Parts: sequence; structure tokens; C-alpha cells
Amino acid sequence: MRAGGLPWCTPSHESQARMNDLLIRFAAVRHHTAVLAEPLSAEDCSAQSMPDASPVKWHLAHTTWFFETFVLEPNEPGFQPFHPAFRVLFNSYYNGVGAKHPRPQRGLLTRPALSEVLAYRSNVEQRMHALLAQQDGNAALRALVELGMQHEQQHQELLLTDVLHLLSCNPTAPAYRDAAPLQGTAPVQPMAWLEFPGGLADVGHLGTGFCFDNELPRHASFLAPYALGERLVNQSEFAAFIADGGYLRPELWLAEGWDWLAAQQLAHPLYWRQAEQGGWNRFGLHGEQPIAPQAPVAHLSYFEADAYARWAGARLPTEAEWEAAAASAMSLAPAMLAQAGAPRERIEPEAAGGKGLRELFGEVWQWTQSSYAPYPGFRAAKGAVGEYNGKFMVNQYVLRGSSCATPPGHARLSYRNFFPTTARWQFSGLRLAQSL
Amino acid sequence: MRAGGLPWCTPSHESQARMNDLLIRFAAVRHHTAVLAEPLSAEDCSAQSMPDASPVKWHLAHTTWFFETFVLEPNEPGFQPFHPAFRVLFNSYYNGVGAKHPRPQRGLLTRPALSEVLAYRSNVEQRMHALLAQQDGNAALRALVELGMQHEQQHQELLLTDVLHLLSCNPTAPAYRDAAPLQGTAPVQPMAWLEFPGGLADVGHLGTGFCFDNELPRHASFLAPYALGERLVNQSEFAAFIADGGYLRPELWLAEGWDWLAAQQLAHPLYWRQAEQGGWNRFGLHGEQPIAPQAPVAHLSYFEADAYARWAGARLPTEAEWEAAAASAMSLAPAMLAQAGAPRERIEPEAAGGKGLRELFGEVWQWTQSSYAPYPGFRAAKGAVGEYNGKFMVNQYVLRGSSCATPPGHARLSYRNFFPTTARWQFSGLRLAQSL
Amino acid sequence: MRAGGLPWCTPSHESQARMNDLLIRFAAVRHHTAVLAEPLSAEDCSAQSMPDASPVKWHLAHTTWFFETFVLEPNEPGFQPFHPAFRVLFNSYYNGVGAKHPRPQRGLLTRPALSEVLAYRSNVEQRMHALLAQQDGNAALRALVELGMQHEQQHQELLLTDVLHLLSCNPTAPAYRDAAPLQGTAPVQPMAWLEFPGGLADVGHLGTGFCFDNELPRHASFLAPYALGERLVNQSEFAAFIADGGYLRPELWLAEGWDWLAAQQLAHPLYWRQAEQGGWNRFGLHGEQPIAPQAPVAHLSYFEADAYARWAGARLPTEAEWEAAAASAMSLAPAMLAQAGAPRERIEPEAAGGKGLRELFGEVWQWTQSSYAPYPGFRAAKGAVGEYNGKFMVNQYVLRGSSCATPPGHARLSYRNFFPTTARWQFSGLRLAQSL
Amino acid sequence: MRAGGLPWCTPSHESQARMNDLLIRFAAVRHHTAVLAEPLSAEDCSAQSMPDASPVKWHLAHTTWFFETFVLEPNEPGFQPFHPAFRVLFNSYYNGVGAKHPRPQRGLLTRPALSEVLAYRSNVEQRMHALLAQQDGNAALRALVELGMQHEQQHQELLLTDVLHLLSCNPTAPAYRDAAPLQGTAPVQPMAWLEFPGGLADVGHLGTGFCFDNELPRHASFLAPYALGERLVNQSEFAAFIADGGYLRPELWLAEGWDWLAAQQLAHPLYWRQAEQGGWNRFGLHGEQPIAPQAPVAHLSYFEADAYARWAGARLPTEAEWEAAAASAMSLAPAMLAQAGAPRERIEPEAAGGKGLRELFGEVWQWTQSSYAPYPGFRAAKGAVGEYNGKFMVNQYVLRGSSCATPPGHARLSYRNFFPTTARWQFSGLRLAQSL
Repeated sequence: MRAGGLPWCTPSHESQARMNDLLIRFAAVRHHTAVLAEPLSAEDCSAQSMPDASPVKWHLAHTTWFFETFVLEPNEPGFQPFHPAFRVLFNSYYNGVGAKHPRPQRGLLTRPALSEVLAYRSNVEQRMHALLAQQDGNAALRALVELGMQHEQQHQELLLTDVLHLLSCNPTAPAYRDAAPLQGTAPVQPMAWLEFPGGLADVGHLGTGFCFDNELPRHASFLAPYALGERLVNQSEFAAFIADGGYLRPELWLAEGWDWLAAQQLAHPLYWRQAEQGGWNRFGLHGEQPIAPQAPVAHLSYFEADAYARWAGARLPTEAEWEAAAASAMSLAPAMLAQAGAPRERIEPEAAGGKGLRELFGEVWQWTQSSYAPYPGFRAAKGAVGEYNGKFMVNQYVLRGSSCATPPGHARLSYRNFFPTTARWQFSGLRLAQSL
Repeated sequence: MRAGGLPWCTPSHESQARMNDLLIRFAAVRHHTAVLAEPLSAEDCSAQSMPDASPVKWHLAHTTWFFETFVLEPNEPGFQPFHPAFRVLFNSYYNGVGAKHPRPQRGLLTRPALSEVLAYRSNVEQRMHALLAQQDGNAALRALVELGMQHEQQHQELLLTDVLHLLSCNPTAPAYRDAAPLQGTAPVQPMAWLEFPGGLADVGHLGTGFCFDNELPRHASFLAPYALGERLVNQSEFAAFIADGGYLRPELWLAEGWDWLAAQQLAHPLYWRQAEQGGWNRFGLHGEQPIAPQAPVAHLSYFEADAYARWAGARLPTEAEWEAAAASAMSLAPAMLAQAGAPRERIEPEAAGGKGLRELFGEVWQWTQSSYAPYPGFRAAKGAVGEYNGKFMVNQYVLRGSSCATPPGHARLSYRNFFPTTARWQFSGLRLAQSL
Repeated sequence: MRAGGLPWCTPSHESQARMNDLLIRFAAVRHHTAVLAEPLSAEDCSAQSMPDASPVKWHLAHTTWFFETFVLEPNEPGFQPFHPAFRVLFNSYYNGVGAKHPRPQRGLLTRPALSEVLAYRSNVEQRMHALLAQQDGNAALRALVELGMQHEQQHQELLLTDVLHLLSCNPTAPAYRDAAPLQGTAPVQPMAWLEFPGGLADVGHLGTGFCFDNELPRHASFLAPYALGERLVNQSEFAAFIADGGYLRPELWLAEGWDWLAAQQLAHPLYWRQAEQGGWNRFGLHGEQPIAPQAPVAHLSYFEADAYARWAGARLPTEAEWEAAAASAMSLAPAMLAQAGAPRERIEPEAAGGKGLRELFGEVWQWTQSSYAPYPGFRAAKGAVGEYNGKFMVNQYVLRGSSCATPPGHARLSYRNFFPTTARWQFSGLRLAQSL
Repeated sequence: MRAGGLPWCTPSHESQARMNDLLIRFAAVRHHTAVLAEPLSAEDCSAQSMPDASPVKWHLAHTTWFFETFVLEPNEPGFQPFHPAFRVLFNSYYNGVGAKHPRPQRGLLTRPALSEVLAYRSNVEQRMHALLAQQDGNAALRALVELGMQHEQQHQELLLTDVLHLLSCNPTAPAYRDAAPLQGTAPVQPMAWLEFPGGLADVGHLGTGFCFDNELPRHASFLAPYALGERLVNQSEFAAFIADGGYLRPELWLAEGWDWLAAQQLAHPLYWRQAEQGGWNRFGLHGEQPIAPQAPVAHLSYFEADAYARWAGARLPTEAEWEAAAASAMSLAPAMLAQAGAPRERIEPEAAGGKGLRELFGEVWQWTQSSYAPYPGFRAAKGAVGEYNGKFMVNQYVLRGSSCATPPGHARLSYRNFFPTTARWQFSGLRLAQSL
């Protein structure tokens, strides 16, 4: 994987950017990961609660492995790996790199210890600094570093959702970290709808900033007239769905979802628990607490989001509908993305105030009815990094927006998140849509 | 489910059609099912080789149940069921009708005997004749009967693919019925491509004939320029893919497909067997025989079709691309559909002669890269028949065209067949596509 | 496998027995199997309801295969198999014979048809008659024929229990054959106990008749004083166990049994069903009917039998305890065995009248707490027939006596039946024991 | 559970024993557990590599829970639990105590931290000291404390075998702790046999020391004449079995073992690995190293031990044979048990020198052909501690002797260890037997 082979945007005007700026951002991203791990013990960092989730220690190491394998190995003079076994231990899914430690056994890697992984991080960071200080003008290299930072940001979100799942398995309901209680809020307002005319819409990444290959190429898509809910479905609405027998009525569910529900014996969103005094509690990064009526509901599978929409007489939007509507909203409020990533004390979805199409970013990812598929003319990069996105484009559905666990600066209008229809451990909710 | 509730086409000009015509077609469809079962013993008709497949006896009964439940029960004066238990035994998946016999246990229904099921068929046919003779002018009723006939035709194809799977499990390799050997054919020609300009294309059923609800509404879709292979991928090409390590190279496969391959230890299409003298045999409805080099390859999963396309430097078409290209081909050769369904001695794919876009119908279903999803503005019928299509619109992929097992008169330009990505027991193959 | 290699009893005084007698018994055993299949259709005979059970057609063929493979093949001049594929299709578990058709797929063998299997039976019977008429004086051959007859008798019982399981899966509750209702009987008497002094007891087959290798060698076993229930646990007693929360109290169960119960969600014996009017029905070879209070309870797993015994303040007997007690009872009533096998209209357990240790034979097999293990000095035969018993001597438990489905003449004092602890589809019940 | 309810030996002469002595032994046992955990990090102590194994941290807590629940809770004035959640978290399988944390999720308990568990240990130890100092004369209490110490010793062995399994899952092959290499030893000697006359033998615990309830009552058992191998089967012999196709020949295996082998694709003992230079390495507590030819083979399942014995023309002994022979050997060498538990640098089986019946204790547990069953007249204790042994007496087989991981003072002539036939992660090997 050499210069020029990478499809992600590496616009020409950035080639004059100061490498200093990249180094500063690299350090900031790396630091943020370490900060996220700080409230956790070595034991917390080592356990794996399900095959889909990874230990925090593994996230810390794998994001480092990415830089060592894809940036240092082909570029560092006299490259020597930090530890020869790490190439296999911390490879996630890159067949082009070689063998992989079996995913369900990541929690058995009690060695290397957390302290060794932190030393690995420091070592690679120092070598990255040295390399980047030397190779100032190399655009291909900078593109790879950019990719590595974006990759690490994705793992920052997974680190939080994975540790939330782990803590949820503990009967003592421990918090990731303490936080002041959520403030009382205004009464729940009925859903309002915003209409969009449809027509030919351009979909996909625009402009000169970074994007993943799956956001390209930008292309036209024809839309019929539609409407979107101006806010997300909230927790009181979802409780009403449950109270109305939502989990007991097959006519509300896709057939596969209904079978899955029965096999898993599900009757509420992940992390919701019957409160002793009646009603629902939910478990989150700050422990167990009552549901917040007006805050967006989270931790829904595609099947649950779809069933709720059918119950509400609506449907899920397509990703093109979502993106076209969000683009028009952002033309009115360009600061939306910047605000979404701002640090806040509580890592959990909250209701947003204001008017118009809101809660697009920073609360919960929004399931769309669009299967994760290549855009027309899509091309994956050559070599192992080409495995980043393309090979997952089947039997998954696209989520749009971003969540309260998405790190600052990572959200994007054209961003395509994707998960299988049964995934519930992400901050995943829904926005309603209708055909007009 | 009363008049007006059904979305399938019930065009006005048909409301003047003679009921006689419907009765003749009804009798013909019913007779064809019985003819398909004729080569089989009661034992052959009773066994179920996997949960996805059903016994022939069950197909014979369920298609009858459909008429008894959806046509006779709400319309026949003084309705009495043929047997009270059949409502449950032969319900496939209609939750609106009530309880269902568990699908994986259909092969345990040694009672009712085949002879009783044939008596059930006769009884319902007589009652249907009596009813239809009386209710000449009822368009809603005629629409339901039409739906029941189309439903029975779908089961005619499944009957053949299910019995093929059953016979394939028998080490003695029995034939469904004997047939003269396939004639020698011309040498294999290299793939030629036909180009299409793209632009806004109308997709979905057009006109006044019958269609399923999933083919509606007709709507615009924007296409970038593309090319399609003028014929299907054939058996010699697929053997070359195998010989080139096609099943051993992860870079050719979607990640989920690669994992599935490893778990199932697959290395060739379903029904292909290593020939003692080297090369490949394939098992079919006429027994085991050498592969036919120029005939379309069949019994591929989505994953295998997708991997082949990647190996060939191409991709699968979208269903909109397929339909737009097929529409233009049919404007040149309108008789294509009629020819596809003509009876032929061998029920297996063969190479078609001629020029232009060919083998669209009557050989093998063609996987597309399109996830099975509702068309914009899709609405399912009210009541239990509304479960016909809509609730399956997730985690399946669309196949277009028709196959050698599709009964006469059932193929259609806008027809959407769909199966999960691992299904292989249908006559499923592929046509290559490219973006231009 | 030639003369002398077989451990089963081939006593010298039988070597003068008339071959005529053997031929008559051979014909009788073979005829009895065919009679058992008579009430069943070809479809009934072809289906397999679970991997542990086999289709009736398979029993008909396999018992024939046994004679063809072990008697005709090594002894018939110019041996030609009836059908070359049958050697594999109808091999049960003899690795020494070669490949086997996979057990769970026996129900997929719709070919050969039942009629062909019946022709196979006739053919082998004729060849057996011809062979035996010629080889009058060959004791080793006669021993093999004897083994084949005993083997076929075992399959006669399995044929009935397997078809019962198949019919139980049919929601229409069909009967194997009709029979007059069970006559009303005397009131249930409380359990009475018979005491035995223990000491050194000889266990294992005695005398000159046939036995299986697992009944040898006869050997001494030391017993502490004990008592046995004079009759079997009956259905009203088992209903009382259920009513007392027997299936809900972990302290009554072995740990593995409790886990199995929870995983399978079991709350009553196999084939018991809640009656609409309250109480329990049970499904049997003559259809569904109310439980018979004083008749022995059947279709219990080892775990259920063990839990009942603990609930009753007792335990299961060891097989040595059972055999020593039964031997003393038979010395008082030598006709017990002959009566047990007498034909009766209903194939289901009934209460026996009389006094003393009763219901030893002909009602239900009686679970013992003895793991199925080789007797001291046990030696399996050489060759493939040596696989008959020895290789199953692990993780199974011994049942003693015989059942209502055991064919006439097959029961024996030293007979060792064996099944895994979760098997319930046999006519398996229990007799209580206590240490004194 | 009060005085008198406990069946384990509480002989009268010990009732005069100084409580001081019990306190000293209590402190020593507790200290030994802590010493075993010392080489391990918090991460090592927290992980669970399979449902059958438990994290070290869990062992540390559960052995403490045993004292808190069974000794302190009913005896300590004003009892308050250290932490209310621990009653559930660290209950292993005592239904009588109440709910249990699911066994397969013990590795997800990252909280409480190791440091908290160590604090829990200290706290309970202090309270135990205070209680025992006060209740000097209470024999029932002392019996419970004795049981708790024996229980903790059992977990000391499991702690080592569980951590060995965990480390074996790590591709970097880390050692539990370093140790000097095994010294070169004398050449392998052929197996020699010792003959025993059989007859009536007394089996079960004798005398006034502690034993578990499953070793009682002592009872007579009749044995036929037999011979035992004077030493254990060693690693070079087992390598010869493999080289002779031992894992490929069905005639050597019990049927269930053969199926298990095929399903698991096994071809060598657990922890054996193909050496790069040919031959076999084995992984152990001191890392990976070549097999030691004359040292006893370990980590065999019952199935492998049984198959080896059959290959060698022998069989496994019964537990009565083993105990009778070992009793006679110990009458000649009474110091055998004391020597077995002596501390040694390497925790792995080694060949013992000397003559006569040797390697009975301190190397590997020896599979017997005896199913784990209650001795005649067995009675479990009342209450929750009665669940200690009795409820596991099914589908397991008895191992006799002790292993290199058995703590000092824990081995006993009448000791009955037991595991399912597929368990391999213990130090389990075999001694051959023959019937004479």
C-alpha cells in the first residue's frame, strides 16, 4: 500500500497543511483514548462480555497496531516491531496482514498486561512523531495517518459501548464513572413533521475534508416526496409502545425479527430493567436510573426500530432521505456538527431544544431502512486497508447521524455507520419517516 | 379481507373478463401441480430434507389450504372446513390466520396420507368451481383467486427445487424423472458486454396484468451508466474460478461469506460432485451427469455469485439496472417471456442461442446486489394476505428473471424473487455487471 | 468372523438341535416384524422423528442387512448382494463393516421404497432358508443366526417405540392401531416392600440358552441387605409427585438432571398431556386417553425416575439387587417369563394382580442406578459383531426386566437393557429400592 | 445446619483436640491459596477461559464465601455479610443457599476488584479467628471448619488447572511461574505387572480422620483376581499410541468417545503441540517444553485413557481394585502419602523411582472404569452442604490417587475424584489393569 493507492479524500489544498497541525491532532486523538480508559481498572480493561465486543485493552492495542502496521512498517527505516506476537494478537480482520487471534478469545489475553499495552502506545507514538517530523511533504503518508486517527475515533466510541455492555453484565450495576443526575426537563411534546419535496438529490461526501471510502462517490439519487420527524423517538413514546403490546403483536414485526424476538425472549430495549416501584429503569454509563421521558430512546435493534415505526403508522427513512434532509437543515444551522461533539458531563442521549430538524447528531445513531451497499462506482483501496469497509457490505443496515459516544470532530453529514439488524449495544435509536 | 383490500393489480378491463376463462386457468394451474407430483411415490412426497424445504405433500396441501382459507372461508355459504386440523397443519406463515405447525416438522406429518391430500385437493377444486360459477361479477373475489393461482405457481417451482434437494441426500442418486441426455453444443464463447446509458428509469410493474404487491408502486430510479453481460456465467467459467482458487482466497469474498464458507467447509456449488475420472459432475432432476460447459451455472448462493463477479473484475447488477436493461431487450423481442415458459424435456438450465441480452428468463434466477426492500410508497394489503411479501423485506437479496423450474406464464419483467445470501437450493446463478 | 469367535452361549447340547427348529423360529421372528409394520402406510414407515429413532422401513431393512452381511456374505457360495448400496444404507454402527449412512438422515431415504425393502426381506429369507438347509451341523453358523433373531427382536421393540414417537409429533394424535379401552381396575394399593438379606450373589447369565455377551461372565457380587417395592411405581403416584412440585424442587434432582429439565422446560413424563377437563392424558399406541391410575408409569428418563425415588424417600435398585431378587421370585413362579410375552390386545403397561415381587417383566423396563459397564472378565467377540454391545458401555444406565413392547420369548432374567439418562421414548419406568 | 447433621468424620478423639491446632491449620490453608495466586496479575486472576473453569479471583472469593456462609452466618453473633451481593456472586452450585451468578459469566465480574476480594479474605479470616477462639468445644462447628479447609484445598488444585487452561489459550505461551528444567532421567523401562488375588475387599474410608461423605460408608466389595501396572502410563508410551494410529482407529474407542473425537477433531492429549523440529511439546505451568518420555502422561479424557488401555491389551481398573491394591502397597510404605504432598519446584508429573506399586499419589489422577455412584447406604448431609457431592453422582467417572497439583495433606487412600468422560484440563492419566 503505497502513495496514491488510497481512495479517501486527500485534497490538494491540504498538501500544504503544516505537519505540525497533523502532529497536534494525532497527539490529541491518542490522548483522548487514554482519557476514556482512565476510570477503568486493569480487570475492567481485560474482560470481553460477548464476541461482538472487545476488551478496552484490546482497543488500546489495536488502534496502536493500526499505526504500527500500516504507517510505520512500510515507512519507518529499519522497522522493528514492538513485539513480534502483536501483529497477530491485535489484527482485527485484515486477511491481507495475515493470521488473527480469534475474536471471541480477546478477553483471554491477560498477557500482555495493561501496563505493557500502555508502553506499546507510548513507543508507537514516539516513533510516529519521529517519522512524521521527517516526512513532512508525503501526502500519501498523511492520508494514512488521517485514516488511522479516524479509525481510532471509531474505536473510542466502541470502547464506551463495549465497556457499557460489560458493566451491564455485573449484578452490582457499577457505573463507568459518576455524573450529576440528569436535570428535569420540559414536558414531552407530540411529534411534529417536516416535509421534503424529493427529486434528484446528491448523496455522498462533498468537499475536501476526510471521509471514508464508503461515502464515495457522490452520486445522484431520486427521491419521492417524504416527511421526517423533527426530533427522535423518545423514551416515553417507546414505553407507550411496550405498554400497547408492541413486543407481543406479530403484525408489527418483520418475520425474521419476530422469530428473533421469540428465540431471545425479548420484551424491552437492551439495558431497560423493570423498576421495583413499577415503570422502567435503564442502565447506562452512569449506572442505573429511571428512564428519561423526553430523551431519545437508545439501544434498539433494527427490528425494534422498524416495529416501532410501523406501530406509529410510519416507517424508517432511507439514508438518501436522511442525508438530503440533514443537508438542508445544516445549510440553516452550520454549527450543528461542532456543537454535537462538545464535551458534556453525561454520556447519554438527551433531548435537544430548539426548532426544525434536530437531534441529528450527538444523541443516538438513527437506523435507516437502507441496506449497507456500495455506492454506484465504489472502489475499495488496494491492499489490506481496502478491507476497511467494502467487505462488510451485506446483511447490515445503515445508521446515520452520530451519538453521545461519538468523539468530538468525528461526525459528518455523509457518515455511514452500519450494524446487523440484531445489534443493540450501540447508542442506536430512530427518527420516523413517511411517504407523502 | 373483503373487496378493495387487495393491492395486487385488478385492472378494470378484466372485470369484464369471462369467469369461464378464470375457471379454465384455475383448472390448468391445479392440474399442473398434480402433474409435477406424478413421478413421485408417497414416500417421496412425505419427506422433508431441511427446514427451508417442504415435502411435496405439504405443497399439495398448502396451495389448497390457501384457496380454502382465503377464498372459500369468507365467501362460501355455510362454509365447513374439509378437516378442522388442516387450518393449522397447512398454514405456512400467516400469523393472521392463527397457529401453525412447526416448519421443521412438516416431514413428520405422515397423516394425512398423500391420498387424503389428493382428496382434499379435489374437494376444494369442486367447491371453488361451484363458488366461482355463482359469483361471476365479483372483482375482489377474482383477484383473490388470481393471487391463489400465482401462489400455487410459486409452489410449483419450490416443489421441484425441494424434491431435488431431497433426492440429492440419497446416496443412490435417484432421478426425479428420466430424460434424454443433453445434446452436445457449440464451443464456449468469451463474455460480451452490452452497455446502457443510465439516467432516470421507471422501475416496477406496468400495465393491467397481475403482479405481486412487492412490484408496486412503479417509481423512478436514477442509474449511472453501466454494462451487463449479454449471457449468464456458465459452468465452464465457474469451474475455472474454482481451479483458480476461488474458494480459497478471502480477498474475493464478503467477510460474512468467507466465515460462512469456512464454517460449512464449502468448495463448489451445491450439487457439484468430484467425478471419479476427474472434473465435475452435477446432480439434477435427471440424475448425476457431467457439468455442461456452456450452460448457465446454477445453485449458487449470493456469496458465491458475488465472489465470482469480483474474481471476474465485475460486480452483480442492481435490480433497477437489470429491469431497465431487460425492458429495452424485450422491446426488441417481445416473445421472450412466452418462450421462456415453454415446456421442455429437461428441467435444467441450458445455453440460449441468439444475440443481444439473452438468458433473461427460463434458465436460472439472477442474483442482484439489491437488498429486498419496499419500493417507495409500498403498502401491504390489509389482513392476513398482507403477510405475503412485506414482512420478509430484510436480510434477503433480490433475484431477477426466472428459471427452468418456473412454470409457464409465471415469469414477468418486474418480478422480484428473494432469498437469504446463503440459499443455494434454487436454480440461482448470475449475470455480470460493470459501472462505466 | 468364523466358527468359535462368538462369545454368546452356544451350548453343546444345542448342537444336536434340529435345524428344522431353527428354521421355524427364524420364520416366526421374521413374520412377527412384518406383522408389526402392517398397520402402517408407506409414509408412516419412511419418516424419522428424531435422530435417536429410526424409520420403520429402516428397521425392516437393517434387520435383513444383519443376516445378509453377517450370515450370508461369509457363508453363501457365490454371494451377491441384493443391492450394492444397501451395505452402506442399512449399516447401523458397525465400523468394521465400513461406511454408514448418517443416522439423522435415515428418514430421507425415500428410495428404496417400502415395497423394495419388503422384496429385500423375502429375498434374504429365501437365501437364508437355502443356506440353513444345507449347513445343518454348523454350530457357529447357528449361533450367528440366533444372534440375528435376537437382534431382530430388539428392533421389533424399537420399531414400536419409534413409531409411537413419530405419531406423537402429529397434532391429530393418530393411533398405531385401535384397541378396546382399558378395563376399569381395582383401587390403588399403597406400596408394599419385600426385604432381601444380601450377601454374595451370582449375577449374569446362567445355563445353556442364548444370551448377549454383555450378560457374561456370570460372577459374584456382594450385596448389603435391601428391600424392593413389590410392584412398580404407578401413574397415580407419579401424578402425586407432579402435584407436589416434583419438577420444581432442585433438591430432588441430580444436578445434571436439573439443568436438563430447565433447558428442556419439562414438567411431566413424555407423552403426558394436560387434559382439557383437568388432570392428565397420555398418548400411546392406541391414541390419547386419560392416565390409568394403577398402571405402571412409563416414558421416564433416568433423571425423572431417580427424582421420584428421592421424593419417595427411596432410591433406584442396583442391577445386582434387581437380578438377585428377581431370581428368587422366579424360583417361586417359573412361568413368569412365559406369561410376560403373551400376546395381548393393548400394547401398554397394565397393573398386574397377584402377590409377591410382580411386574418384573412385560410392563415397563425398570431403571437401575447401575452404570452400564462390562462384567469382570467381559470379552467382546472378534470382528464387527464385537461392536454389538461393548462399545456402548459408558454414560448409559442399565434397565432391567422387559416391557409391553418386548416381543414374546425375548425377556430374560439376566437381560441388560441400557439407555442414556435423558432417554424417554422407551417404555421405561421404575421400581423403588431401599437400603436396610 | 447444626450440630450432628454432618456425615463427614468427626471422630471423638478429635473433640479434645486443641482449637489452637485448628486455627494454625486454618491459617496455613488460607495462606497457601494466597501464595498460589501470587505469581498472577489482576488480569490473570479475572479471566475465565471456559465455562468449566473459574477465574482465580472467583476461587479466592468462593472459598471465603464458603466460610462466611456455612460457618459465620449461622454461628457469628450479629452476623453481617461483608457485602450483600457476594452471597449470589460467589455461590457455586448450592441451590439451598439461593440464587447464583451464572457460571459461564464468572469472568465478567471485573468488580469486585482483586484487591477487594483480598480484603474480603482478610475480613473473613479475622472473623473466623474470633469465632473459633470463642467456641472452643463445638465439635459440629469444628467439623464445618474442617470441611471448609478441605473445600479450599480442592479449589487450590482447581486454581492451578484453571489458570493452566487460561494460559494455554494465549499464543505467547506464558508460564505460570519459571522453574528449572526437568532433569534428564533414566531410560524408559517396560511395564511390569503386580498381581492381586481379589476376594472380598473393604472399600471406603477407614479410621478417625476427615473424609468426604462420598467415601462412606465403608463396605465390602467382591473382586475377581486382577493385575495392575506398577507404574503409570508415560509420555513416550502415549506418543507410541499416537504414532500407531491410536486416534484414527475406531475399534479402539468407545462409540461415544469416537464421535466426540471426530466432532472435536482431536489427535493428541490436551496441551500437546507439534514441535517445530518434529515430535511433541507440551504446555504446562512452566511454559512449553518437549515431552518427558518417562514421566506420566497427563491431561487425558476418560475416552483417551480407555482407548489407550484397549490398544495396550489391558483395561482401566475399577476403583475397588485400585483401592484394595493401594491399601496393600501402603501397608508396606506408610510414608507414601506424606511424600506425595511435599513441595517441589516443578508442578508437573514426574517419574517416580523405586519398586512395587508406585506413582499412586502426587503425579496424575488415575481414571477408573467406575462410574461415580453412591456407596451402598450413602447418605448426604441435610441442608445446603448436602449438595457437596451426592447430586453429582451420574455420568461421571472416578479418578483415584492425587496429582502434582494436589496440595500437601489433601491426598487420601479412599479419595474419590470425579469428572465427566470428556474432561481433560485436570492432571489426569492412567494406570493399566488386567483380569487374571
